Amino acid sequence: MTELRIYHTKIEPQWIDFNGHLRDAYYGLVASYAIDDLMDFLGLDAGYRARTHCTLYTLELHLHFLHEVKSTDDLRVESVILDFDRKRIHVGCRFMCSRVSDPVATTDMMLLHVHQGDKPSSTPFPEEVQAKLAQLQASAAARDAFAPGSRKIELKRR
Amino acid sequence: MTELRIYHTKIEPQWIDFNGHLRDAYYGLVASYAIDDLMDFLGLDAGYRARTHCTLYTLELHLHFLHEVKSTDDLRVESVILDFDRKRIHVGCRFMCSRVSDPVATTDMMLLHVHQGDKPSSTPFPEEVQAKLAQLQASAAARDAFAPGSRKIELKRR
Repeated sequence: MTELRIYHTKIEPQWIDFNGHLRDAYYGLVASYAIDDLMDFLGLDAGYRARTHCTLYTLELHLHFLHEVKSTDDLRVESVILDFDRKRIHVGCRFMCSRVSDPVATTDMMLLHVHQGDKPSSTPFPEEVQAKLAQLQASAAARDAFAPGSRKIELKRR
Repeated sequence: MTELRIYHTKIEPQWIDFNGHLRDAYYGLVASYAIDDLMDFLGLDAGYRARTHCTLYTLELHLHFLHEVKSTDDLRVESVILDFDRKRIHVGCRFMCSRVSDPVATTDMMLLHVHQGDKPSSTPFPEEVQAKLAQLQASAAARDAFAPGSRKIELKRR
């Protein structure tokens, strides 16, 4: 069983662009808020950050846009831990709308645990966070089912 | 010579997150605005969209975060046409700050030309837009130099 962390949000009117749908960048903002929520859940919350000067930095992010999202839609983000090591988390998010049965978008991103100071540097997660990550980590099957996963973007000639 | 389309923006105070730097998602918003600017340049502007009911949809987007951006920084986006076909554009953007010599981030995305109606469907670019794309397209060398390009995200065990 994959543990999912669920984040809900309303669509703000200013997130709709001239195409009459959710602007691409705001999927990223919703994912960013979902990761804030996941950080709280993992114990990497405001108190932890103030106490340790440690936080997560995003290294890389991929987004697939699968269905249009309209101003009247709701949005639910299901986050899964695809992989992690001592300092990094590979997290995947599925964007779901009640109107559509399939995901309307997916994203996956690489996050790095960083000690902030004069010169930010990567640092291992505390043991209790590693334990929580291990608990939450998706099974190999759930990981393989996370599609579309990230890949090289290119135009394939037909 | 690669033709670059340059877009400038200030960093809005609300774009800075609890880490004291530009929130990941707002690189995406800046890129989204840079693409709006590129659309105007290509003739896919508001007048074109109203007249033809055609526009660009983003299919996929990758972002690499390379250096922190602070509230006091400026931001310049250099956009290049990496590739295109009759209906799609593969565009790359480099994010530059005056404070840092290297790009602070890169993104590449796949855009699709869509006729919006009851059921949006992909449709070829008009000839004059294809001609402009051909003019702007990066050379093979400039394209290869666009790094880091998109790729599969994964944790490589060391």
